[in-house]
Amino acid sequence: MGTSPLPNSSRTPFNEGAARNSAPSRFGAPELAAIPPDIRAVIDETHAKLGFIPNVFLAYAQRPDHFRAFMHYHDVLMQGPSGLTRAEREAIVVAVSAENDCLYCVTAHGAALRVLGKDAVVADQIAINWRTADLAPRLRAILAFASEVNARGFAASDERIALLRQGGFSAADIWDIAAVAAFFGFSNRMAGAMDLRPNPEFYSLGRTSP
Amino acid sequence: MGTSPLPNSSRTPFNEGAARNSAPSRFGAPELAAIPPDIRAVIDETHAKLGFIPNVFLAYAQRPDHFRAFMHYHDVLMQGPSGLTRAEREAIVVAVSAENDCLYCVTAHGAALRVLGKDAVVADQIAINWRTADLAPRLRAILAFASEVNARGFAASDERIALLRQGGFSAADIWDIAAVAAFFGFSNRMAGAMDLRPNPEFYSLGRTSP
Amino acid sequence: MGTSPLPNSSRTPFNEGAARNSAPSRFGAPELAAIPPDIRAVIDETHAKLGFIPNVFLAYAQRPDHFRAFMHYHDVLMQGPSGLTRAEREAIVVAVSAENDCLYCVTAHGAALRVLGKDAVVADQIAINWRTADLAPRLRAILAFASEVNARGFAASDERIALLRQGGFSAADIWDIAAVAAFFGFSNRMAGAMDLRPNPEFYSLGRTSP
Amino acid sequence: MGTSPLPNSSRTPFNEGAARNSAPSRFGAPELAAIPPDIRAVIDETHAKLGFIPNVFLAYAQRPDHFRAFMHYHDVLMQGPSGLTRAEREAIVVAVSAENDCLYCVTAHGAALRVLGKDAVVADQIAINWRTADLAPRLRAILAFASEVNARGFAASDERIALLRQGGFSAADIWDIAAVAAFFGFSNRMAGAMDLRPNPEFYSLGRTSP
Amino acid sequence: MGTSPLPNSSRTPFNEGAARNSAPSRFGAPELAAIPPDIRAVIDETHAKLGFIPNVFLAYAQRPDHFRAFMHYHDVLMQGPSGLTRAEREAIVVAVSAENDCLYCVTAHGAALRVLGKDAVVADQIAINWRTADLAPRLRAILAFASEVNARGFAASDERIALLRQGGFSAADIWDIAAVAAFFGFSNRMAGAMDLRPNPEFYSLGRTSP
Amino acid sequence: MGTSPLPNSSRTPFNEGAARNSAPSRFGAPELAAIPPDIRAVIDETHAKLGFIPNVFLAYAQRPDHFRAFMHYHDVLMQGPSGLTRAEREAIVVAVSAENDCLYCVTAHGAALRVLGKDAVVADQIAINWRTADLAPRLRAILAFASEVNARGFAASDERIALLRQGGFSAADIWDIAAVAAFFGFSNRMAGAMDLRPNPEFYSLGRTSP
Repeated sequence: MGTSPLPNSSRTPFNEGAARNSAPSRFGAPELAAIPPDIRAVIDETHAKLGFIPNVFLAYAQRPDHFRAFMHYHDVLMQGPSGLTRAEREAIVVAVSAENDCLYCVTAHGAALRVLGKDAVVADQIAINWRTADLAPRLRAILAFASEVNARGFAASDERIALLRQGGFSAADIWDIAAVAAFFGFSNRMAGAMDLRPNPEFYSLGRTSP
Repeated sequence: MGTSPLPNSSRTPFNEGAARNSAPSRFGAPELAAIPPDIRAVIDETHAKLGFIPNVFLAYAQRPDHFRAFMHYHDVLMQGPSGLTRAEREAIVVAVSAENDCLYCVTAHGAALRVLGKDAVVADQIAINWRTADLAPRLRAILAFASEVNARGFAASDERIALLRQGGFSAADIWDIAAVAAFFGFSNRMAGAMDLRPNPEFYSLGRTSP
Repeated sequence: MGTSPLPNSSRTPFNEGAARNSAPSRFGAPELAAIPPDIRAVIDETHAKLGFIPNVFLAYAQRPDHFRAFMHYHDVLMQGPSGLTRAEREAIVVAVSAENDCLYCVTAHGAALRVLGKDAVVADQIAINWRTADLAPRLRAILAFASEVNARGFAASDERIALLRQGGFSAADIWDIAAVAAFFGFSNRMAGAMDLRPNPEFYSLGRTSP
Repeated sequence: MGTSPLPNSSRTPFNEGAARNSAPSRFGAPELAAIPPDIRAVIDETHAKLGFIPNVFLAYAQRPDHFRAFMHYHDVLMQGPSGLTRAEREAIVVAVSAENDCLYCVTAHGAALRVLGKDAVVADQIAINWRTADLAPRLRAILAFASEVNARGFAASDERIALLRQGGFSAADIWDIAAVAAFFGFSNRMAGAMDLRPNPEFYSLGRTSP
Repeated sequence: MGTSPLPNSSRTPFNEGAARNSAPSRFGAPELAAIPPDIRAVIDETHAKLGFIPNVFLAYAQRPDHFRAFMHYHDVLMQGPSGLTRAEREAIVVAVSAENDCLYCVTAHGAALRVLGKDAVVADQIAINWRTADLAPRLRAILAFASEVNARGFAASDERIALLRQGGFSAADIWDIAAVAAFFGFSNRMAGAMDLRPNPEFYSLGRTSP
Repeated sequence: MGTSPLPNSSRTPFNEGAARNSAPSRFGAPELAAIPPDIRAVIDETHAKLGFIPNVFLAYAQRPDHFRAFMHYHDVLMQGPSGLTRAEREAIVVAVSAENDCLYCVTAHGAALRVLGKDAVVADQIAINWRTADLAPRLRAILAFASEVNARGFAASDERIALLRQGGFSAADIWDIAAVAAFFGFSNRMAGAMDLRPNPEFYSLGRTSP
């Protein structure tokens, strides 16, 4: 092995010949013209706000009833009344999606967390490992419970719930942590089934220029 | 250890002093009178059909917006148009819930599968271990993929999807298997968070008398 | 995907074309006439008591020496003198077999527990997940230790044993919990090797008519 | 950290203050005089043959009925008629016990395998990792299946059994591999419950002097 | 739970009260003046090149002999002659560190990969999940083997090595993939022991402004 | 199955037809004459001391730069100044290598521990399962932390470190436990990649004749 000279490793390229997969998902996406008007309106509104159409919208538009049910539940959980702030809810999504190795969700919700939380460093830390992130005790408690919810065979003991209550979380807060964590475990798996591809815009969103 | 006589073990009782937990969930349930009319209508209809109110309805009624979003998505997945029969979809729910050790979901959906599938033995087998159940190749293929979706870090390869397509499943079928499996992983975790208790009626539903 | 109409899912059958596997095990069973008289006597006695011959008897009769050793040890553990009641011992068997996903053992011993314990609901709960079953503290302590014994690499610490002693369990009780849990881990694996099929009678045994 | 000089590490002792635990098990052992004559005879015979009494005999003598059932089943499996040689069966015991991290069983059966197999190097390799041991194809196939039996939730598929049959193993051989592997999973767990201590004689048994 | 109004969730802050941990590691760092000149030279050179001192240098400088051994081995692996390009080697580091949830290594080497590989999107994808990243076949084969090396109990079979050889990798290439993957598993664990904190500069390095 | 007579199992051989693999590794070893003089000197010195050349030297000599970096770091960790004795450090290596199922490292470092620690029984116990070995509290605390370091995703909490400090370990001691444990996780994986074969001499080294 040592006798033949090893190649000069000064050439830097890697991943030669790879192509960026630009399909929203492996199941494709409908023509915009074929999308029902109510869904088209949601997509157009998001397009106007973000400047691009997140692929999850196009992928789900394949199945209009699923699109409506998913987006409605998503909005109830992420934007509805709750003792958790919107940024705290995004942090749950990013932490759970990272544990589930979900490329689309870590990328898209990581971007959302950078924007909403106004702390890109902590958002990036949570996207890698919430356990070693610079977290305040309240956010650490939230993400610790979300991570337990995310585990196979989760069933909370009375003692665990009492501990959260003592930590200042109401029953509704506990419900919301569990609901956001578990719903995105569902979403992560759908992304894995359809090979949902993150839009390239997400990677830099919410970052200040270096 | 062997010198003192061991107790006579002929006494048969076990679990003495245990009480059946009859609360729908650890987070309680609202007074029926406090439930919004549209939700009350759903509950009354189910009550009339089954003869009892499944605890999931009472537990979710605590949060009306969550109730509506959950039940709507549930119905789209379980009763909406699909290449999978309703019994096949219930089989996915039971198999996934068994893998996730969810007491409420195995009990309630096990009952549903006994009723819908008209084969209580296979329904009970799936509730224990779908892998060793007496399954036809199509149902085995469905549950095998559902089980993969249920695993942590799920992301289907192109090869896996091609295999399912070759087995006669359309893209929409694959979507539906994944969606039902993943949605009930979400539901299993909510049941675990709220300690959702199965109604006693579920245990015998769909069984012929011995 | 959304353009072609999805099939009407109102058809309810599932698992079409599947056949109930009626062989006791994949290794078959001997002719009754070929079974040695002492083993035949055990089988006839059980047949008279239950009304059918559990498949484990027929499968093990293939190897008479193994039959005798297995049944003898089984009886020492399950019917011999012990500080644990017979129903408590069956509860251990069901809990461990459920953790090991053993179709035969959950089905057959689940039936035995329903009969012996006179509480079909708790028996079914233990068959799904003993952790969320309605258990009295003593039975919960028994099943918690049985579950630890069942884990790969089990070795109890002195602290763990002391805790059980403080909870009122004698050294012989601890021995018996471990022995029943571990012996049925052995039995579960033999069932998995021989694809032992539960007799259909087990599924409804010990259930009151709905 | 770097400012204070680090201790001189040339002193070689380690584990100072530890005592060799010489009790057969944490549950003790009966007085020899208190042991029933039939069990005493077995112990005396083994003592005469080996020159010491393996602790498993003393530990199990606490419970005479368990002693008899365990030793009888052990002998049926390890010394009864089988298509597997006795050394092959010991190799299964060592491989499974190593996977289960069982100190007593790896030590005692490792010694037995060195003696029976007449190849102390391969015996030691199997005690560390059968996968990287210098094995002939037949023994590798035996240990691969034994290892699968040892896994949680084991249930062999028809395809797996067919592969073993094509490899020259009879149904009885497959039964024996499974039975030996699973029985010692049971034995490993009993050793873990009782903290069974290996006799010091085992460590050097079957080794030629260096 | 539903009776009291839920807080208005429009407030966006999260993680209030958290402080950025600015210590290089929990074991601190030496005064620059106390660092031996040869190590100081390495640190100064890196400082000049990057504009900041990566915390790994300061943390390791606590133990000069360890610093020298670690940095030397690092440079042999990452900059020495090899059939793998430097960017491919960084990709291995990022993929393995992500599997090991190492905050420091994913952050610092993720930045290095963005710079060296000149494709920030693929670098970010690998930092989340190399399996679903847009990889060319060669890089996918490299990372697949690196991931196997990273698993507990890794031991490559002859068949696995033959497959890599058929894929165009030399014995030295296979060595290098394994060495880089395994060395950074070591480095990840050291970072976890010392709570190594990523410098804030790493998060934006190698990103074009949004 | 029971009808045909089973073979007489009195024949004792096992593993017939297996050959001892005598290559240092699957990647071979260089001719002694082709080894650079500085490496040749290290090998000759070890040869003189032990009476044989450990295969790790020959295998690594294939890549002289890797040989030098590996052996230097090894010596810093295992022979450099430290609050841990050399035998304690070898005990960490054996415990971690056993958890990682590394045939070469358990064999070679198990021998080293028998020699250095002057207690072959405890060395053999640690090679099987440090948890059930006869350990003094200090060595148990060392190996418990080493085992945590060895786990996937290791990141020590402040509480865990404080506990070690209270137990009398300095920051440098904690560093050294982590460094030795993690470095040999790296070494274990290299051994698994190259199929490093233990020299037969290791198996009996440090054993007194039986």
